[in-house]
Amino acid sequence: MIKTSKDRQFRPVAVPDVDLGGFWGKWQDAVCDSTAQTLLDRCVEAGMLKAIDVSQPSPGIVIPIQPWGGSTQMFWDSDLGKSIETIAYSLYRRANPELEARADAIIDMYEKLQDQDGYVNAWFQRVQPDRRWKNLRDHHELYCAGHLMEAAVAYFQATGKRKLLDVMCRFADYMIKVFGHGPGQLAGYCGHEEIELALVKLARVTGEKKYLDLSKFFVDERGTEPHFFTEESIRDGRDASDFHQKTYEYGQAHQPVREQRKVVGHAVRAMYLYSGMADIATEYKDDSLTAALETLWDDLTTKQMYITGGIGPAAANEGFTDYFDLPNDTAYAETCASVGLVFWASRMLGRGPDRRYADVMEQALYNGALPGLSIDGKTFFYDNPLESTGKHHRWKWHHCPCCPPNIARLVTSIGSYMYAAAEDEIAIHLYGESKARLKLASGADLELAQTTNYPWDSAIAFTTTLASPARFAISLRIPEWAKGATLSVNGAILDLSACVVDGYARIERNWSDGDRVALYLPLALRPQFANPKVRQDAGRVALMRGPLVYCVETTDNGEDLNTIILPSNLPSGKTTVLSELNGAVAVDLPVEREDTGAWGKSLYRSEPARREPATARFVPYHLWDNRTPGEMLVWVQSDQ
Amino acid sequence: MIKTSKDRQFRPVAVPDVDLGGFWGKWQDAVCDSTAQTLLDRCVEAGMLKAIDVSQPSPGIVIPIQPWGGSTQMFWDSDLGKSIETIAYSLYRRANPELEARADAIIDMYEKLQDQDGYVNAWFQRVQPDRRWKNLRDHHELYCAGHLMEAAVAYFQATGKRKLLDVMCRFADYMIKVFGHGPGQLAGYCGHEEIELALVKLARVTGEKKYLDLSKFFVDERGTEPHFFTEESIRDGRDASDFHQKTYEYGQAHQPVREQRKVVGHAVRAMYLYSGMADIATEYKDDSLTAALETLWDDLTTKQMYITGGIGPAAANEGFTDYFDLPNDTAYAETCASVGLVFWASRMLGRGPDRRYADVMEQALYNGALPGLSIDGKTFFYDNPLESTGKHHRWKWHHCPCCPPNIARLVTSIGSYMYAAAEDEIAIHLYGESKARLKLASGADLELAQTTNYPWDSAIAFTTTLASPARFAISLRIPEWAKGATLSVNGAILDLSACVVDGYARIERNWSDGDRVALYLPLALRPQFANPKVRQDAGRVALMRGPLVYCVETTDNGEDLNTIILPSNLPSGKTTVLSELNGAVAVDLPVEREDTGAWGKSLYRSEPARREPATARFVPYHLWDNRTPGEMLVWVQSDQ
Repeated sequence: MIKTSKDRQFRPVAVPDVDLGGFWGKWQDAVCDSTAQTLLDRCVEAGMLKAIDVSQPSPGIVIPIQPWGGSTQMFWDSDLGKSIETIAYSLYRRANPELEARADAIIDMYEKLQDQDGYVNAWFQRVQPDRRWKNLRDHHELYCAGHLMEAAVAYFQATGKRKLLDVMCRFADYMIKVFGHGPGQLAGYCGHEEIELALVKLARVTGEKKYLDLSKFFVDERGTEPHFFTEESIRDGRDASDFHQKTYEYGQAHQPVREQRKVVGHAVRAMYLYSGMADIATEYKDDSLTAALETLWDDLTTKQMYITGGIGPAAANEGFTDYFDLPNDTAYAETCASVGLVFWASRMLGRGPDRRYADVMEQALYNGALPGLSIDGKTFFYDNPLESTGKHHRWKWHHCPCCPPNIARLVTSIGSYMYAAAEDEIAIHLYGESKARLKLASGADLELAQTTNYPWDSAIAFTTTLASPARFAISLRIPEWAKGATLSVNGAILDLSACVVDGYARIERNWSDGDRVALYLPLALRPQFANPKVRQDAGRVALMRGPLVYCVETTDNGEDLNTIILPSNLPSGKTTVLSELNGAVAVDLPVEREDTGAWGKSLYRSEPARREPATARFVPYHLWDNRTPGEMLVWVQSDQ
Repeated sequence: MIKTSKDRQFRPVAVPDVDLGGFWGKWQDAVCDSTAQTLLDRCVEAGMLKAIDVSQPSPGIVIPIQPWGGSTQMFWDSDLGKSIETIAYSLYRRANPELEARADAIIDMYEKLQDQDGYVNAWFQRVQPDRRWKNLRDHHELYCAGHLMEAAVAYFQATGKRKLLDVMCRFADYMIKVFGHGPGQLAGYCGHEEIELALVKLARVTGEKKYLDLSKFFVDERGTEPHFFTEESIRDGRDASDFHQKTYEYGQAHQPVREQRKVVGHAVRAMYLYSGMADIATEYKDDSLTAALETLWDDLTTKQMYITGGIGPAAANEGFTDYFDLPNDTAYAETCASVGLVFWASRMLGRGPDRRYADVMEQALYNGALPGLSIDGKTFFYDNPLESTGKHHRWKWHHCPCCPPNIARLVTSIGSYMYAAAEDEIAIHLYGESKARLKLASGADLELAQTTNYPWDSAIAFTTTLASPARFAISLRIPEWAKGATLSVNGAILDLSACVVDGYARIERNWSDGDRVALYLPLALRPQFANPKVRQDAGRVALMRGPLVYCVETTDNGEDLNTIILPSNLPSGKTTVLSELNGAVAVDLPVEREDTGAWGKSLYRSEPARREPATARFVPYHLWDNRTPGEMLVWVQSDQ
């Protein structure tokens, strides 16, 4: 009776169709109050408006060309794009005429900048106009277009204004002429993936299949032989071997995507590619892409992912290294990479709910992406180590400002990751105080109110508002960690063992106005141990509570956090609500502590350190460095 | 009755006065068989002879000027100097007319290169002649002279040939004119210390106090205000703030040396400075220097030293970072830095034997310096991590080839670190099969034969050969780790509690021909724990046996060495002699091993890994990477 996964097409609800309260509401308020404007201010300070304003002379090369042959100035369009996208989502939550006027002005500039043929790119129109489409491998040309497309869709959805959407449709129409296998066309793709998933968004909002087809073209061409990047560089008179990072794996262009089995290279690029692939798999029901993605998913999540959902341990390539190489203190784990993992995971749910993806989406969202933003929305983490000796703190800005707008747009659009709709089914992937407006192709039209203090509390309640009763299914994720979860409809307990498929409790019935679904997800503190092949976590344990990874900080626990030893039988902790951290739940646990004071002078000795009983306070990792700065540690010593 | 330490003047015996057998004899054979010639071959291949041969045109700049304003080519004189020094010591052990002829030819070139005024420096005579004495801070000018002086002394002692010694005396005489506080003189010193200790060697072999005085001048001037480096850069039209590493701490020139309390900056520079300071303290009985050195010694050995005696954890400054920051896998711990620590420690023994220094000298010698050389003498470690995932291996050469000749000259001159003589006392700092010829100022003239298989075995015996009986003292180090050591003279057991001062058993008596001293140093395996402030060693234990740090390697123990867990009560191990590793003693111990095979697919889970009983083979750390390459680990998990 229950449909199997993979034969449906779930698409996220539009951002404006979900109102957030509670946990996410506070984060969205921080973006509305601070981040949205800060992003734009910083872009303006960097000189980005001069770059697109045709009424002013071109600023020329402001950020010098680097050894890899480009400049971060080449991606300024993407910074503006992500900032406009964030503003769009923030405007939906809270009107801000001043900010909207500034965004409108920028969009006007882009409209004026656009060439007759539809091309738009600040760098290649105003700084190096002779270099258009000359180096797709390194110069982020389509990447920039992708971010402007995402901005266009978001701004249209939030404000109803079509100008940027029309600009980007014209650009996409021009791309359709430029790219292909016909005479004079380029059979190429971008070195930094992004355009693929952006074209899908454009297609979904416009209903134009041609944009899907172009996205599929980019996906299909990637890594095929003869290799586009090699041929392109020869045509351009460049040494084909002089590639940044020396390998096509850096941009996942080393093999056709359907043959790729190992997650490699630059982490953000990988996540954006797989996101685009998953969208194409959903839209075309392409099992060959789904099969490759499932293999890649396993590769990432069972061999290359921090417990925080952070990915890409190395700064050198901003990406992946060896299996099970997960250093904690030097972890790169870029905020953008976890944002990208959320993107990918959400799109793996396109062909049917499966907690294999949604559990990791939640893990990466709370613990990999969200640390990138301070609770006041004013400062940002770029890299996210799991251990700090006290020198790692949030930045006001970054020389490569990709992360701040990325986490801001994710936070403000989080509603679209919580709910997804297929023809006659609603999937609820994430929990949080919210109200969603949902319209199913089968006809149902409802509002779903979710009342909860999740992730701090276990109880989650849904109430339906329906003009007329309708038959459809609601699928609710039961996280793998939620042992002992219970579910009831209008007070009648459901047998989860009978209704859970792929980790989702599927309730198919005639729904009426005022129906009540109650879900209880136990939030017991869970010790987590790493595969013993992860040498950096040997002898150590991390704590999770619900979806949240916890850590210890100096402000609560003094210095030398590595002297904390958690007992092998996890004692029951005492929870405390911290009002200064947005009502976060801290956990105080009895532990042992190595006594540094009694150690004596020698650096090494034959006796281990004396241990003293102590109490350690654990706080959610995503909130670290929001109070007095100091050390931080996720993986503490375990007394096994 | 027993003299206190610090009021005597011990000087090392000359290298030719000690013949080595056993453990060190084999290492010296490797240098004689391979390293000595390899060093010279590599220097020639690099083009260093062209640089000094005035019958050929100057090679010009072969190695480009780097961002710090210099080129490693500027130190070619030091590479040639250390190579000649190594050859000199090797010639003493084993005649090699071909190698000697090659060294003679190089020395002839230096003689021809020398200016009328006495100046010798390949770079500043042949490449940038207008830059002489213009940038003492960065350009290693006196550093090069120092290494040529050390070579001159060694070559004279080994062969009796004075030519290089005379060249370098003329250079030193010229320096005396250049440096000072008189009109037109420079009150400066070298950014990379070395000349200080070299001038002491020159003074000791020539008996010329003027060279000691110049050394003392360099020591006294360092870090005083107005700052020489600042004034020099202004005179030279350079920006005084544009200093490599941005701080005078890099070259220990941030304060007058007597005010320095913290070991900072480039590790090799620090060790060479402190060595020179200790020599000056000994020669001038300068308590103000000794006091500073004792503080610095504590600072280094109780807060900043790996258990291997490796120092300087960071590659970025080739030096020191924060207290207790001792990462194992990324440890820089340059071979040269531990060689320098041996230099410093040996010189701290100048004012009287004290195992506080000699124990660390032995620790750094065996575990910090010696790993720099493969057992065949053909390949070299530059940096010495305490953990490797299998990618760290010895080099045939290095772009900055300072380490290979440094470890080679230490190995071949090790006899002079074992024995030292004061007026009426012999100190024995290190043990090893050897024969030493000793002449005391008080008149005694003896040969001391040491018979032992130390460091593999515990028993050490000395036999005296004396033409006529004489009264003097022999002080033998009782290492702090040697609990239960015993000592006898001609079969009569001594009460160590009555005769040990500062960790040395002092035997003052009338010695006759054929007297026999028997020392027994128990070599029980010792667990070693780090101060709990060393976060990288938390929950871990290292094993030592005698002076040797042990490690595990993949070739003996398979992969995933971090799954090895040593029981809290160290079991007795089984020792095995490994003939393929020069008769090294391996220790097999019952351990537990985390089962990676049974873990399953997930990366994280609530249950810790299952443990299985296993046996682990521990081998001496200094011998790692001499067999099948693989992982290596010093600090293994401890089941405390």
